[in-house]
Amino acid sequence: MSPAVPSGPDTGLLADRIRRAGEVAADQGVDLLAVTPGTDLRYLLDSTADTHERLLCLLIPAAGHRAPPALVVPRLEAPRLPAAQLEELGVEIVTWSDGEDPHLLVSDLAGGPEVLGVSDTMTADHVLGLRDVLPDARLTLAGPVLRELRMRKDADEIAQLRAAGAAIDRVHARITEFLKAGRTESQIAAHIAAAIVEEGHETAAFVVVGSGPNGASPHHDAGERVVETGDVVVIDIGGPLPSGYNSDCTRTYAVGRAPSAEIAEAYAALQEAQEQAVAAVRPGVVAEQIDATARGVLTAVGLGEKFLHRTGHGIGLDVHEQPNIVAGNGIVLEAGMAFSIEPGVYVEGVWGARIEDIVVVTENGVERLNQRPRDLVVV
Amino acid sequence: MSPAVPSGPDTGLLADRIRRAGEVAADQGVDLLAVTPGTDLRYLLDSTADTHERLLCLLIPAAGHRAPPALVVPRLEAPRLPAAQLEELGVEIVTWSDGEDPHLLVSDLAGGPEVLGVSDTMTADHVLGLRDVLPDARLTLAGPVLRELRMRKDADEIAQLRAAGAAIDRVHARITEFLKAGRTESQIAAHIAAAIVEEGHETAAFVVVGSGPNGASPHHDAGERVVETGDVVVIDIGGPLPSGYNSDCTRTYAVGRAPSAEIAEAYAALQEAQEQAVAAVRPGVVAEQIDATARGVLTAVGLGEKFLHRTGHGIGLDVHEQPNIVAGNGIVLEAGMAFSIEPGVYVEGVWGARIEDIVVVTENGVERLNQRPRDLVVV
Repeated sequence: MSPAVPSGPDTGLLADRIRRAGEVAADQGVDLLAVTPGTDLRYLLDSTADTHERLLCLLIPAAGHRAPPALVVPRLEAPRLPAAQLEELGVEIVTWSDGEDPHLLVSDLAGGPEVLGVSDTMTADHVLGLRDVLPDARLTLAGPVLRELRMRKDADEIAQLRAAGAAIDRVHARITEFLKAGRTESQIAAHIAAAIVEEGHETAAFVVVGSGPNGASPHHDAGERVVETGDVVVIDIGGPLPSGYNSDCTRTYAVGRAPSAEIAEAYAALQEAQEQAVAAVRPGVVAEQIDATARGVLTAVGLGEKFLHRTGHGIGLDVHEQPNIVAGNGIVLEAGMAFSIEPGVYVEGVWGARIEDIVVVTENGVERLNQRPRDLVVV
Repeated sequence: MSPAVPSGPDTGLLADRIRRAGEVAADQGVDLLAVTPGTDLRYLLDSTADTHERLLCLLIPAAGHRAPPALVVPRLEAPRLPAAQLEELGVEIVTWSDGEDPHLLVSDLAGGPEVLGVSDTMTADHVLGLRDVLPDARLTLAGPVLRELRMRKDADEIAQLRAAGAAIDRVHARITEFLKAGRTESQIAAHIAAAIVEEGHETAAFVVVGSGPNGASPHHDAGERVVETGDVVVIDIGGPLPSGYNSDCTRTYAVGRAPSAEIAEAYAALQEAQEQAVAAVRPGVVAEQIDATARGVLTAVGLGEKFLHRTGHGIGLDVHEQPNIVAGNGIVLEAGMAFSIEPGVYVEGVWGARIEDIVVVTENGVERLNQRPRDLVVV
């Protein structure tokens, strides 16, 4: 059972997002945004429409550009659209039928853009189709525009992420049901996947069960290895709520008995690294500084080389979005940014561990969205 | 329970596909193909790799072009590749690490192509990334090259499609378990989805339950309408086997009692249209002729206007691929082509019906891959 979750963005919020997208586009020198199905479209219209190879495209003019907001959509899809809401948003619906070239409709509506920003995930058939009908426009990615909005979560989004964090915490709270010696990683993953859905997620987007030496491979998912007493096991799980907002939480468990002193010592350093990195989060801090904080703790005890990846990634409608918590990322943290903090230690061929929470930057600090114990729990 | 299915393409078959892709590319004036994850990559390498925003790209030179076949892949992904098989295929593995620009690796390997064919589903971030590093290359779609190969199925592929047809037939054979008056379309769809997986599919890719007036909307999926005695119900279902090859089969059922004489008469014409269209399939016939055959039968009894869509679509690793069975498609059918034949009758607001089989063109005729009764079965 999952408790009630917030109801999602209302029309006023969507109108605000569309208006701000136009403003940021103007700031970045993009005249028109062309947004095809995916998480950017969900952010702007709360729409999960997916018309596969048939073009569905939201056109958002930059502030000051001579084109109307419009939604180009296959005629078959039009009856499913929230027509009243789109009218309230000032978005004109323009339909096309099989046999027509929808790219020509876009060029008719586009107002002669010099720079056209296309969704990062727009497929090549449409990218090249738009290039062909707008030969004087320079194509660029819409992602850098929309990222400016999407990495600063509003209150509705933070409420959704909080609900997602609570949902995945409920799965970790049930870990003793799933994680038992004698089962394969895949069997354990299948049980966890079912629980992820039971606890309120739409799907189980990823279930990493890295046992023993497999825990040392950060990208291992779940295989045929049988979990044994004494294993250290990395469990990294998550998925979207019906709202589209994602959970992502890793805990590491010891099966059947406490680990060796060597592992316990390394794990304690990892836990300290995660703790200090979280504590360092507040508005005004640069993203790469959070990475440096986690890495510094591990490097001080000789484990810096065993921490193979970035410290974290932004999260929202995508599991991986901005801001990345990584060396070289100079983004200054602001209230409303949400991301993972997930340092790890990987000893190739032997064992691995990772601790991951989602955190949100608040007005004067940080809020963790995952609350399960972070020590090496013996199950 | 599902019977054993064929084991999938061996290295020799993949080598042949890669060689022929290079030949067709040369024929079409494309110097180099850049294939990102998706069904084209699965066809060429039997790979389901998906690295999300990180570039993974198979480069296939046209016959005669000065570039090696290569696979550009994120370093984290490299351990999962079938290295021995790729070596046997003559495909060089080139890895990149986070922080590097993988598009530069592609341009280093590309041999200065004048025309670069990119996957139809390549995302804009990579399309524009390749445009930027290969400013002298003209970008075009790889789809027209790969379509030439993929729409002519080899024996391995036909065996997979045959297994998919048998699997979805087993679901339709169980229809009385699911389709009952008093249940909502969504409840029925959920039961059918589970059966689709039980009968050997990897997932239930689509489950259309269009009851009563909802049957008149070809793109309806399944809603909250409660099925009633006397309803005519369209059930259009399918999904991929573990091989990646898809099933797709529609049957229309009458719930509880035989339909009215008017509906029975229209249905009989529909069945005749589907029968004649299937019978018209053989090598040398033009695709649009099959559409005209089905449409002609319905037009003759005044139902031509009620048949709202094309007669069929190719099927394989994608549910919808070439050849389309539609007016204007001049493709000449050849042995090995596989597609749906699915005429329908839609009376808006009242009722609808559709009959769909997958067929394969044989050396001298046609093989149906779906065998369930095609009359309006009362359940």
